[in-house]
Order: sequence, then structure tokens, then C-alpha cells
Amino acid sequence: MRAAFYISDGTAITSEVFGHALLSLFPTQFEHFTIPFVETLEKASEVREKINREFKRSGETPLVFHTFVNPDIREIIDGCDGVIYNFLEHFVTPLENQLGIKAKPKAHRTHSIHENSYDNRIEAVNYALANDDGSNISDYEHADVILVGVSRSGKTPSSLYLALQYGIKAANYPFTDDDMDELKLPVFLKNHKKKLFGLTIDPLRLTNIRDGRMSNSKYASSRQCRMEVREVEKLYKQEKIPFLNTTNFSVEEISAKIMLETGLHRHKY
Amino acid sequence: MRAAFYISDGTAITSEVFGHALLSLFPTQFEHFTIPFVETLEKASEVREKINREFKRSGETPLVFHTFVNPDIREIIDGCDGVIYNFLEHFVTPLENQLGIKAKPKAHRTHSIHENSYDNRIEAVNYALANDDGSNISDYEHADVILVGVSRSGKTPSSLYLALQYGIKAANYPFTDDDMDELKLPVFLKNHKKKLFGLTIDPLRLTNIRDGRMSNSKYASSRQCRMEVREVEKLYKQEKIPFLNTTNFSVEEISAKIMLETGLHRHKY
Repeated sequence: MRAAFYISDGTAITSEVFGHALLSLFPTQFEHFTIPFVETLEKASEVREKINREFKRSGETPLVFHTFVNPDIREIIDGCDGVIYNFLEHFVTPLENQLGIKAKPKAHRTHSIHENSYDNRIEAVNYALANDDGSNISDYEHADVILVGVSRSGKTPSSLYLALQYGIKAANYPFTDDDMDELKLPVFLKNHKKKLFGLTIDPLRLTNIRDGRMSNSKYASSRQCRMEVREVEKLYKQEKIPFLNTTNFSVEEISAKIMLETGLHRHKY
Repeated sequence: MRAAFYISDGTAITSEVFGHALLSLFPTQFEHFTIPFVETLEKASEVREKINREFKRSGETPLVFHTFVNPDIREIIDGCDGVIYNFLEHFVTPLENQLGIKAKPKAHRTHSIHENSYDNRIEAVNYALANDDGSNISDYEHADVILVGVSRSGKTPSSLYLALQYGIKAANYPFTDDDMDELKLPVFLKNHKKKLFGLTIDPLRLTNIRDGRMSNSKYASSRQCRMEVREVEKLYKQEKIPFLNTTNFSVEEISAKIMLETGLHRHKY
């Protein structure tokens, strides 16, 4: 299998995103190697040797995605037996011309601490944890958004992703079996109705997920899942709460859709 | 201020990472607009109008980072008054030549659900939550890594990021004031010593963080913070636990460094 390398003097997140976006267009498999924090000439030489070994092993030219701005390190990596894809190189000059200023390459720090964003994100993570799963219903005034939905519809991972990625304070509150007889918005949610965002999910998928956690329970039964989903969707429509069916979406997609629908802006840059 | 647009038919995460990596090289400010899920010609036209309005408003040509593969949508966006940066366009042909196969552009889904990765990540998030802050010490056999450190050294956000981003099951355990008299590894950690990874932090920074939470407390005092940090670092060295000073690092960097040091591989692709 052909090797694909994602290399950087930082986290290598940018190189990974760049490389994956491209390789996902091709209907073939790769062996992936992510190598972050290549900050010295010695490490760069080791990486070059590793790339060359992969070439010998597989007989196929490795693909190398990198974003080095240090010219000495770059030269070492560029001297490997792989083929190099470096988007910075392609785009910096056109951008310099457009902006009328020169780039000031520093060690590559896209995913390092940004003064104002860091505390926001940690605070948002703490908020999400303190307000997860209805564990605290008295602090919704500080929420940017309150996710509601049945158990296992994606509330918790989405809340945490919104916090970590966007610095958004997301509380989440579950509607449980006890609520279902005559499902209404509790008063502590009604008071913050504009912040509510509903998640829903295909009942069959919900059954599968719940069955993986509590096999053969009422909680996981098709009947129960169908009923719960029907009730919450009815509530969303009655109360005009915007909602999203999460069945076919990743945490990233759910979070991006919530940002879009609610008009929230990231607290990060 | 000049506008920078990040646009996609998916989450726009790739466009953001791509654009931010480039713009972070320039010592100037931009007004950022992220527009995900531009999936129809109508939406594309709206976005084009928005870009054109930003041009009129600021008098500066907007920068437009996008990754559209649908030719009809792309044509609409490319017809705006902004300047277009599209890295797919630059790199697809060289990659096709290298791989000897044609790209199969589908709606752009780098950050969508990948069959095997999704459950891994949700399971890892559940694991991180259930094993956060020493709340469960009986399930460390299922941990990929156990982060240890004093309160507010970065354990919880790092555990969650490792789960969400890499699908890694990270438990975390705090050393508290009560442990400090004669700090030793508790037996439930000793039994999983190879999984331990220590976090430490500059005592001054720790004081600041703790003071923001519990002002003027013993917990936040310089003396207490210095003592706790000194004791845990002594323990890490005695027990040969690999450790990292998190003071100047983002959650992304801490997580990438933990992955690198522990040799763990992401459960995602």
C-alpha cells in the first residue's frame, strides 16, 4: 500500500486536513503516517529516512503533505524520495500580491494558543461538562445554545465539540421516558426558548445505539425509540424549536449545522 | 477590514484550516466569514451576492477559500468579485498523474461520517466522560492513556480532544492537596503504569487559572501551586512517567504531543 505522510513543525493538523481532503477524492487506500513537531534538522533527517524506507518497502512513491516554512527543514524533507505537496508554496505569492504585503513566515502555529481564544474554549468545555445531560438547570442564562433531545441522539458529543472547536457554551438536556406521557417544555427551558436547538434521530438507528449499551431493555426497544422520537419531534414542531436529524451526520457536521442554523459565531481566532 | 470567506458544501472545516494556515502568515487582520453547507445553486448565488456586498462595503477585494467539487456551484462562486483560492484545483491533476487514476469528486465529505471511525469516537467520548477527574478508577484496563496531573493542568480538555479528534480513550486522574504529603502512585495507577502520561504547568500560570475560579483560596495560592507542581514533577521523574509542560500549548498541541510521545495511533480514517 502506498504511504501518505502528513508532516509539520506543529500539530500537523493542517497537513492532515489538506492531505485527507485531496486523497478522499481518490478511490484507493493509503497507509497514513502523521508526524508532528518536526522542529529540528535532525528530526527532519529521520523523517526523510522514514519516507525513503517506505518507498523501498512498498515500491510506490510516498505522497508527502507538509507545510514547513523553515527553509532548512523544508529542504531536507523536499530531498526525500517521496513526491511533495505543499500548498503554502503555491498560494503565498499570489496572496502577497493581492494583499500588497510580504508574508512573515514563523514556525507554523495555526493550531497553537491564540491569546483570546484559549480561555474561551476551556471555559466553554467546563460549561459543557457542568451542564451536560440536564445535570444543571440553573445556569442556562450563560448558555449560547441548549441542545435538547432523547438519550443517545448526539447531544453530549456535539456540546463538547462546539466547546472545543468553536468556544461555544452548549448545555444539553435530555427528554426521558418519564417526560413522555404528555411531553411539554419544562419551565426552565421555556424561559430560554430562543436558545433551544433540538436533535432527533432515526428510531432504527437509535435502537441500534441503545441496544449496544443496554441490550434487550425497554430503553432500547424499537417501540420505545419510535415513541420517544415521535413525541420530541411533535414538541419541536409545536414549540417551533429548530431541529436537526443527526442520523447521517458526523459530530463535525452536526456542530457546523447548529452554528449555521442558530447564527452563532465562533469565539476563536 | 478586508473580508475572508471560507465556503464549502460540507462543514467548511477544510476551507477554514486551509485559509487560516495561509492568512496566519500575514501580519494583518481580516473579517472572517465561514459559510458551510452551500449545497444548491440558489445558496451559491446568495453567497456570491454576500461576497460582492462585502467588496462594496470594504472597498477591498474579499479573499475566498473554497473546496467545491461540484462544477455548477463552483462556477457561481468563482464568478464573484472576490479572489478565489482553491487548493483542490491546484493539486488534483498532479495527484492524478502520480497515482495513475482519476479523481472521483463527490460532494465534499472530508468531515462526514466514516463507517468505522464514528462509533470509535463516540465510545471514546463516553469513556472520557465516565473516567474524567478520577471519577472512576476501576476501568483503566480499557484506557489507551491515563492523564495525571494537578487540578487545572489541562487534563480534561485534552482527554476530550483526544476522544473527539483521534478516537482515543483517555482517562484522567487528579493529584489533589490530600495526596501531597507523601505523593506516591496509588496502586490502581501503578497497575497501569505504562499508560500514564503526566501533565504539568508553570505554577504562576496555575495560580492565575485557579484564581479565576476560586479567588483568594488556598487552592489558588502561589505557595500551594508551587508545592503541588514540585511534588508531581518529582513523582514523574521518580516513576519515570513521561510528562509535558502544558503552559504554552493549546489543547491541539498537547494532544498531538501526547499522541507522538505515547506512540498511540488515531482510531479514525
